[in-house]
Amino acid sequence: MGRRDETRKLRRESILGAVTDAIASHGVRGMRVDQVAAAAGVSPPLLYYHFADRAELVRAALEFAHERAPSTGLLAELPAGTPAYEALETALLAELDEAPSVRKFSIVWGELSAVAVFDPDVRPYVNGVCASWSSDVRRTIRAGIDDGSIAPDTDPELAAEILTTLIDGLCARWLAGVLELERARALARAALERHLR
Amino acid sequence: MGRRDETRKLRRESILGAVTDAIASHGVRGMRVDQVAAAAGVSPPLLYYHFADRAELVRAALEFAHERAPSTGLLAELPAGTPAYEALETALLAELDEAPSVRKFSIVWGELSAVAVFDPDVRPYVNGVCASWSSDVRRTIRAGIDDGSIAPDTDPELAAEILTTLIDGLCARWLAGVLELERARALARAALERHLR
Repeated sequence: MGRRDETRKLRRESILGAVTDAIASHGVRGMRVDQVAAAAGVSPPLLYYHFADRAELVRAALEFAHERAPSTGLLAELPAGTPAYEALETALLAELDEAPSVRKFSIVWGELSAVAVFDPDVRPYVNGVCASWSSDVRRTIRAGIDDGSIAPDTDPELAAEILTTLIDGLCARWLAGVLELERARALARAALERHLR
Repeated sequence: MGRRDETRKLRRESILGAVTDAIASHGVRGMRVDQVAAAAGVSPPLLYYHFADRAELVRAALEFAHERAPSTGLLAELPAGTPAYEALETALLAELDEAPSVRKFSIVWGELSAVAVFDPDVRPYVNGVCASWSSDVRRTIRAGIDDGSIAPDTDPELAAEILTTLIDGLCARWLAGVLELERARALARAALERHLR
């Protein structure tokens, strides 16, 4: 990568870090583009050079949060020699974690999903993230059927949709203060057991 | 009830109808108290006579939506002679329904839960609704263990928390356009089967 591409990449990442911070603190509707530019240390015109408009910035923030969500990385490459069931449990439970970045990207994801109810423009992107996550889980469930760690009569598509929806719901209740983190993790573990063993 | 109480009750209900309409259309953050008053046909001072401030109005809207959510009524009084499993399935699936009022109260509930992430003042009310719903489901599960329609080794508390969280997650995905209604209903049915049979 040339130095120019490198600078461009770093600047985009700094803007995306600032916009996800802003969404996690104030919600999408409270996010101010000028404040994001200031936090990223760029001028508003420079921000708009990288992201054509507010909608583009929000879409990029959603992708950025998805790429950095812990389960995305963990499901992309399963550790060799670990039963797929255990790898899946580790990956999904990693979404329920007090680490500030996990919490932050989880809030961004929940907020974008909530906004999609009112804003049809956001829906295709939320849909894309759900589809990609569900597909990673489905693939892992198939691997678990193959390695014998998951019950052979499991319907991978059905189980993947139920489990990803449940994890989203547990994150929402945890972030809203309805469920303690440890209880949310225990519920996730119990549901994995029920659906896959 | 005297005529004065009657008028008071009707006026409160008309305001609560207008505020839930406004939240379902524009979200809590887009809800304007003056527009709610206009839609309810009352002056802003009269609205503030019934609901002291915006927070009180939002709290009352959440309770109003919860009271009118289909599963609340269905779980309050189980039909005589129906196995509790079937009654529970009917009640929970009633939350996934195209009927405009079901959709409306579901959006209000999802929106309030999303707002609770950012607004600690809303959390106790969201918590209260979750606890009440979960307790109704728990009681029905116990009835199902007694009448033999639900597996005797079911943990009512665990299953109630998982199933209500899942239904919320399915509603969120349906309302965001991620899941078709029929698919969401099929996933709910499959999860009930897995957790309770």
